[in-house]
Amino acid sequence: MEERQPTRPDQRCCVSRIITIDDPADPRIEDYRNIRDRDMARSGQTFIAEGKVVLSVLFGAKRFPVRSALILANRLEGLRDVLAKAPPDMPVYVAPQAVIDAVAGFHLHRGVLALAERVPLPSPTELLARLPEQALVVVLVGIANHDNVGAIFRNAAAFEADAVLLDETCCDPLYRKAIRVSVGAALQIPFTRGANAATLADELMTAGFEPIALSPAGNENLSKLTPPPRCAILLGTEGEGLPPALLARLRTARIAMSPSFDSLNVAAASAIALHRLGRFAW
Amino acid sequence: MEERQPTRPDQRCCVSRIITIDDPADPRIEDYRNIRDRDMARSGQTFIAEGKVVLSVLFGAKRFPVRSALILANRLEGLRDVLAKAPPDMPVYVAPQAVIDAVAGFHLHRGVLALAERVPLPSPTELLARLPEQALVVVLVGIANHDNVGAIFRNAAAFEADAVLLDETCCDPLYRKAIRVSVGAALQIPFTRGANAATLADELMTAGFEPIALSPAGNENLSKLTPPPRCAILLGTEGEGLPPALLARLRTARIAMSPSFDSLNVAAASAIALHRLGRFAW
Repeated sequence: MEERQPTRPDQRCCVSRIITIDDPADPRIEDYRNIRDRDMARSGQTFIAEGKVVLSVLFGAKRFPVRSALILANRLEGLRDVLAKAPPDMPVYVAPQAVIDAVAGFHLHRGVLALAERVPLPSPTELLARLPEQALVVVLVGIANHDNVGAIFRNAAAFEADAVLLDETCCDPLYRKAIRVSVGAALQIPFTRGANAATLADELMTAGFEPIALSPAGNENLSKLTPPPRCAILLGTEGEGLPPALLARLRTARIAMSPSFDSLNVAAASAIALHRLGRFAW
Repeated sequence: MEERQPTRPDQRCCVSRIITIDDPADPRIEDYRNIRDRDMARSGQTFIAEGKVVLSVLFGAKRFPVRSALILANRLEGLRDVLAKAPPDMPVYVAPQAVIDAVAGFHLHRGVLALAERVPLPSPTELLARLPEQALVVVLVGIANHDNVGAIFRNAAAFEADAVLLDETCCDPLYRKAIRVSVGAALQIPFTRGANAATLADELMTAGFEPIALSPAGNENLSKLTPPPRCAILLGTEGEGLPPALLARLRTARIAMSPSFDSLNVAAASAIALHRLGRFAW
C-alpha cells in the first residue's frame, strides 16, 4: 500500500506507527467503539477529536496528550501533513469504511478521529492568575447545548479571548460535537468548568476583572460601552438568561435590537460582544 | 376529551376544526408522511413549519396560506393561544405520539407541525422597489447549509433587515430545519431566491443600494465603516468566500480578527455585520 512506502523523507516518521485494521473487533481500537454512546460517558479520562482541522489543532496545540488516531484508509494521504505534527510514537490505525462504520456504530463518512487524554482543569483562581494585565474572558452560565458552546469557543478564538470559564451547569466543551463546531478552539483556548456562577463572578472581581453581564434588559448599550482593561463577558441561556441575583449585582449590557423579535442566539450574541469588546474592536 | 369541551368562550373558534386522528394511514394527514424524505422534494408547493414559536409567527405573519396543523395530543392545551391566530377553518389534526411518529417516520417528540403553501417569489427588482429610502438587505451567495441560512434569517430579523436575497446556489429558506433555526424569521422577512450573484449585485446598484461584500480580505474595517442609506451586506460561504470577480468590482469590508485562527462562521459574521450596519447600531 502506498501509505507504507512514502517517498518524501520528512514523512518517514509516520511509517512505523501506521497500523492497518481489518477487523472491527480488533481490541486496539476498542476506545473508538460505539462513539456516540460513549461520548456522554467519556467525561472521565479521554475524549475524541474529529476532522482534519480539529486534529491539526489538537496535535499543534499539544495541550492534551494524544493516544492514537483512527483514519479512513482513503483519507490517509491527505492527512500526511496533519499526522506529521503528532508525537512520533502515536499509533495511527487505518481502516476501510466498513470497519470504521462497524466500530463507530454509524456511518462516519469523514473518518478522521483521534483519541486524547483530558488534563486536570485549573481552578478559576489559577486560570485567572495566569492572564495578562489586559485580558478578555468569556463566562458561560447554563449553556447546555454543544453547538452553542462550540460556536462560542470558535468566536472566542477568532477574537483572541484569553480564557473561557464555564459554570457547573454548562455542558462539556470536550464533547466531540462541541470540539468540531469550535473548529478546534476548545483544544486551544484555556478553559475551566465547574464552579457556580456566583462564585465565578466573585473570583473574577478578586482577580481585578470587571464582569459585564449580557442581557436583553441590560443597563448599558454594548455599542457605547468602553471595555475595562480586564473584561469578562457573561452569557446565559437563551430562554432564562442569567440568574436575576447575578444581574442585580453586576454591570449589565444589552445588544440593541428589534423589540418585536425573539432574542438572538447566544452564540450570535457572543460574536457581537467579542467583536465589540475584544482587542480587534478598533 | 377536554380539547373538545373548552370552557373559555374565546377559544370556541378552535373547537369545530379539531380532528382526532387514530390511524397513521389516515389520508387527511398524507402531507405529513415521511417528513424528512419529503422535505427535500417539497420545494414545489408546500412546506412544513415546526414548533410553537414558528407556528405563532406563521399564523401571525399571514404571508403564507396555511392548510392544516398536526399536533401531538398532549401539546394541544398549551397551543390554544397559537392556534387561535390560525384561520378559523384550518383543520387541526390531533394525534397521540405513536401515530405522530408513525406518520413522520421518526420520533417527533415536540409534535407541533403545520403545513403551509408557498407563494410566488418576487423578482429582485420587485422586492427592492418596495423597500424604504433607508434600507438594509442581506445577500447570500452559495450558502447551502440550512442551519446557517436559518441563523442568518434570525439575525436579520433581530436587527430588522428589510429583505434577504439568496442567489441560485443557496439552499431553500423554507426547508423545515431552516425555518426552525430562524425561529420563524424565514416566514416573516421578505426574501427572494434564484438569480446569480452578479445579477443580484447589478439589481442592487440599479435600485440605489450600495453592496458591501464581507470578506476576510476586505479593504475596509467593518468597525470603521459608515453605512450607506441603502445598504446591502453580501455574505459568501466559509470555505471559498464570495466569487473573486464579484469582490473585484464591489466595496469590500473585513471583520478584524485573529490572523492565526480559522475564519468566523458565516452566521456569526452576519450577526456582527447586521449589528454594526443596522438601524440599532448607535
